[in-house]
Amino acid sequence: MYSYSCLKALFEPKAIAVIGISADPQDKASIITANLLASGYKGKIFPVNGEGAEVHGLGAFSSVSQLPRGIDLALICLPPDEAIQAIDDLSEILVRAAVVTSGGFGETGREGYRLERELARTAKNHDMIILGPNCMGLMNTALGMNASLDPDFTLKGNIAFLSQSGAMCSTALDWANSEGVGFSKFISLGNKAVLGEATMLNYLANDEDTKVIVGYCETLKDGQDFLRTAYDTTFKKPLILLRAGETPSGARAASAHAGHLTGATTAYNAAFNQTGVMQAVDIEDMFNLAHAFSCQPLPSGSNVAIITNSGGPGILATDMAEKGTLNISRPSSSTLEKMKEVLPRYASLYNPIDMLGDANADTYHKVLRAVAEDDVFHSILIILTPAANILEDVEKAAADIIELEKECDKPIITCFMGDHSTRKARRMLRAAGIPCYEFPEAAVRSLDAMTRCYRWQKKDWPIDVCFRRDYSKAKSIVENCRKTGLTELVELDAQQLASAYELPVPETVLARTSNQAAKAAKRIGYPVALKVASPQISRKQELGLVITDIQTPQALRKAFLEITTRATRRCKDAYITGCLVQAMGPKDSHEIVVTFKRDPQFGPLINFSLAGLHVDLLGDVSSRLAPLALNDAQEMIREIKAYPILRGVRSGTAVNLGALEDVLLMVSQMASDLPEIQEAEFDPVIAGPDGAVVANMRMTVS
Amino acid sequence: MYSYSCLKALFEPKAIAVIGISADPQDKASIITANLLASGYKGKIFPVNGEGAEVHGLGAFSSVSQLPRGIDLALICLPPDEAIQAIDDLSEILVRAAVVTSGGFGETGREGYRLERELARTAKNHDMIILGPNCMGLMNTALGMNASLDPDFTLKGNIAFLSQSGAMCSTALDWANSEGVGFSKFISLGNKAVLGEATMLNYLANDEDTKVIVGYCETLKDGQDFLRTAYDTTFKKPLILLRAGETPSGARAASAHAGHLTGATTAYNAAFNQTGVMQAVDIEDMFNLAHAFSCQPLPSGSNVAIITNSGGPGILATDMAEKGTLNISRPSSSTLEKMKEVLPRYASLYNPIDMLGDANADTYHKVLRAVAEDDVFHSILIILTPAANILEDVEKAAADIIELEKECDKPIITCFMGDHSTRKARRMLRAAGIPCYEFPEAAVRSLDAMTRCYRWQKKDWPIDVCFRRDYSKAKSIVENCRKTGLTELVELDAQQLASAYELPVPETVLARTSNQAAKAAKRIGYPVALKVASPQISRKQELGLVITDIQTPQALRKAFLEITTRATRRCKDAYITGCLVQAMGPKDSHEIVVTFKRDPQFGPLINFSLAGLHVDLLGDVSSRLAPLALNDAQEMIREIKAYPILRGVRSGTAVNLGALEDVLLMVSQMASDLPEIQEAEFDPVIAGPDGAVVANMRMTVS
Repeated sequence: MYSYSCLKALFEPKAIAVIGISADPQDKASIITANLLASGYKGKIFPVNGEGAEVHGLGAFSSVSQLPRGIDLALICLPPDEAIQAIDDLSEILVRAAVVTSGGFGETGREGYRLERELARTAKNHDMIILGPNCMGLMNTALGMNASLDPDFTLKGNIAFLSQSGAMCSTALDWANSEGVGFSKFISLGNKAVLGEATMLNYLANDEDTKVIVGYCETLKDGQDFLRTAYDTTFKKPLILLRAGETPSGARAASAHAGHLTGATTAYNAAFNQTGVMQAVDIEDMFNLAHAFSCQPLPSGSNVAIITNSGGPGILATDMAEKGTLNISRPSSSTLEKMKEVLPRYASLYNPIDMLGDANADTYHKVLRAVAEDDVFHSILIILTPAANILEDVEKAAADIIELEKECDKPIITCFMGDHSTRKARRMLRAAGIPCYEFPEAAVRSLDAMTRCYRWQKKDWPIDVCFRRDYSKAKSIVENCRKTGLTELVELDAQQLASAYELPVPETVLARTSNQAAKAAKRIGYPVALKVASPQISRKQELGLVITDIQTPQALRKAFLEITTRATRRCKDAYITGCLVQAMGPKDSHEIVVTFKRDPQFGPLINFSLAGLHVDLLGDVSSRLAPLALNDAQEMIREIKAYPILRGVRSGTAVNLGALEDVLLMVSQMASDLPEIQEAEFDPVIAGPDGAVVANMRMTVS
Repeated sequence: MYSYSCLKALFEPKAIAVIGISADPQDKASIITANLLASGYKGKIFPVNGEGAEVHGLGAFSSVSQLPRGIDLALICLPPDEAIQAIDDLSEILVRAAVVTSGGFGETGREGYRLERELARTAKNHDMIILGPNCMGLMNTALGMNASLDPDFTLKGNIAFLSQSGAMCSTALDWANSEGVGFSKFISLGNKAVLGEATMLNYLANDEDTKVIVGYCETLKDGQDFLRTAYDTTFKKPLILLRAGETPSGARAASAHAGHLTGATTAYNAAFNQTGVMQAVDIEDMFNLAHAFSCQPLPSGSNVAIITNSGGPGILATDMAEKGTLNISRPSSSTLEKMKEVLPRYASLYNPIDMLGDANADTYHKVLRAVAEDDVFHSILIILTPAANILEDVEKAAADIIELEKECDKPIITCFMGDHSTRKARRMLRAAGIPCYEFPEAAVRSLDAMTRCYRWQKKDWPIDVCFRRDYSKAKSIVENCRKTGLTELVELDAQQLASAYELPVPETVLARTSNQAAKAAKRIGYPVALKVASPQISRKQELGLVITDIQTPQALRKAFLEITTRATRRCKDAYITGCLVQAMGPKDSHEIVVTFKRDPQFGPLINFSLAGLHVDLLGDVSSRLAPLALNDAQEMIREIKAYPILRGVRSGTAVNLGALEDVLLMVSQMASDLPEIQEAEFDPVIAGPDGAVVANMRMTVS
């Protein structure tokens, strides 16, 4: 993370140098200078061009070295090589922040990527921060500063917008200007050589001008940093992100576009869920959510009232609400009484409140007032279709809503359907800070997201659990494995490692002969399981090299022979150490699978599911990024669809959920402690009413 | 179904009577007369008012009885009682069709519903058809006829629109007029007392002015008729429906709104899937699809080319395409060569084709031409964001696309992002019959639906399979059960019934004593299963009254005692006939569940899934409405996610799929033949490599 003074230099510079102005008035540096001037930037501007000639009426300098001290921010529009040199030169006069708009870096391939890394290194050496390269710049409306290539300066507002894609920046500006929506900060991140989302969130979370943060991303820089910062941010203000590159083809395109590797979509989804990010479903949704969050309060619960003058749209809104997380609750009896006085006999009072086509502005007003005063409801959706009775009255209805909204502490979202007849009213409502959509579905999506956001912010703070563990023992096991050149731990070592993290493992003895096996089994107590022991054999179960539930010494000897013979035959090059004799897990149990895998972007992703072919095919898996807090582990277990099985549905066995939570937390700790472990599978974890045992495991090291 | 001459009278009347005109010029009949005149209707109009005074300059009649012969259509705006009387009177002068706009029928409660049924009965007696009641009327643009309450007459076009909701009609008209889209027929169905969707489809499928049919519904009238007509329609032209009332709260609201019972959402989804209906996801989607289908050809395959001047929107479009059913294919090498000539070195050629921000109108033109000529692609999506280089050229780019589209036989959909800078171009494209959206996701949704529609129309015709069956035996078993007053068939009867439909059942013998059981088991051959036999006990498995895989006579005697004792204890009031001794199903098998249940709207809905708690919880079930064709049965088996298990994935058993298809087809036949059977469960069907056996079944009769 970067020092706050650097970020302050970037967002609130007192003096700006613009570097790279040529004779061409259409060059980027010239445009950016013009935009700075046009936006009314009050600080000093120092253009640098080769000749030192005047630029937009400003005295110019012929080189960076001639610039005075006291410059906070440099806007650099130079080819890669020169841009890197400029960073070097700027450090001499103690500039702390730069925006590099120029392309020719990572987006162009290998050589460009080398230059981008050099740019980042140079900046780091001088303790400077850089926005970009290959970006459009930034705007800060509080300062009246348009330090970007886009001449459309935005209105002042409370939305901070950040985007990796320049086109999405232009689209957002265009949308905002046409809707009368404003921004607090507007940031084009470009290639993110130095500054990524995490640092920006760090700044924006504490920016008093910003109420809601909205962003578009294809990749995220510094996944682990992002997790921490996003988490801290979302408890303070809503964070809405649209991510592109979810599907394999999309990810390929994103990678070609940005020149970065993207993480797995499961990891992204886990990251967003875990940190309270509201994920937009598409561009339109992103804008709709931005507007709704910026101008309406969050609802303090899930109960929504839907008021409509037409059945169809009311039903569609009800469907959409119920598919999400909203409740269509019944109004209180006093509200019912109030409504009965104004509504016709055939009206539906029980939510969706269908006032029928007879409703006029007065009906809307009275019903809305009754609903607004009803404690049952936490949010209100008003639908108006241009029926004959309201046609003359549409703007009056809008004006009434605007008046009533001022004293209402619940969020109100509206949907005025139709084109000409309702256009003016829509504009009135939006201008008054009441979102108004043309179709009901979008309105419900906004309310649903706001409700989820409220619930997130009310969530208990996570409980971090730390287990006693023998880190040095674990580390030495991993090191020993790496020394022998193996990429996978042999099972006994893996067991030792698991034990170092207090993971419950069954008693296991290595037997080199069937006699040794019988002796071990006697000590452990029948029934036992027998598995091949060989550093070269990993998928024992699939190769038929595991026999479970052995009841007698005779059966054990037979099993020993069977396994070793089969192993010699099936794995010709493997060294067969013997067999492992293992205590069986508890009876009346369920088989669980816990795994983790390191995501390139976010680190270890931990997965939880039941064992079995069905589960694999149906994908009933919950995932979280490490480190897990207690509530994460609890949620992981409860959010799989098969969870009732663990609760003992239909007279099955109920397992000890606490024991499973412990397993998840221990695995999380192991994954965070030991970056050398690339992947691990605990399959199966045998869970019963009294506890859980990890009956089998695999770990690969790098 | 109604005679074509009736429908012709409704849609193409040569003379119309308007009934119910009062002194008030704002009454419905007066408005509708004015609308007829304003739309330029060329036929004769006969107003009927009490006084016989002139109406809108037309000579009026004082009563229906005075009207001349030769009137095809009557528009009735009278209270319920008088409307019913009018139908009676109109039949005297041989009117064949009427539109009843008046409310006060089913939507107002029980008494209204009685009147609605009387209206329907009266019409039926006179062989008349009725649109409505409680509807807005209809428009036929080919005739220049606005026989509706809405004064906004629509443009002529090739979309037929039908809607249960009046508000949705107004919204559609508003949308169409503002987008410059036109309709062929425009129909407000209202309460659907007589005419429902099925009859309308029947007419519209053969209407030469209609290219695509679009509709909004909450319930469907005559589910089985709808299935047949929709199926026939969708092979001729696309049918797009938006359905409201999917969720429980939505369905409740729909039922309150329309006064009808809605069917189950699974049944609706099955109905739409089986008949090739394209389901719109929301109102906006419905309009988008309507426009796209109306003006562009269907693609002849799944490969889409995405051409963009900006990475982000291209990636979002790619994500959306891959989530649907589209392929992002690689261009052919000759196309790659052509593109290399015009695109910068860093451009992405491999689809999405990202031409980068440098692209101008000329680049668009050349790349589009290359892609249009490339046989790899079946459809084209063009994305344009208002980057600096194209800003002056946006309309030129649009004009070029319009020019090129004329000779292109692939569908072209465009997305011009941004507001002011691209608005004019969007309007140009739309006017030229090229859909143009503001955001890429909607554009992809349209292309995806068009591609699915193409695939549907190319589907093989279904193969109807008819099995030999003993209908009279089956019928008598059901009758006997009803006579005894039981609501559920006893197991042996159910088996007999199943056998009458050739369903494979295991050999089963009723044993009243353990001796009889041992004798039976000897004959059948061990291992056997033993279950309680009692007309009062239905859920044997759950009560622990089934023991399977019995290997020896000793075990059998013990099991007999155990089951009968347990049954006496657990089901105190049940008469225990004895136990059923049953042959075990094949070894190495999988357990399947086949069920059916009668949907109030569509009839028997047949479900297929694997057995097991996981499957129940995860809902991996496929459903189809009876009667099934062979391809339906094949699809049902293959579309569950667990299908690979049936194929023997991971060295499991592969089952005989043909045998399972037969089971589904036989069950479908049984469900269609015997309406007395309300519900049936075949659970489990034991399926192995050599065939399938229905090991257990339950059937309830009404």
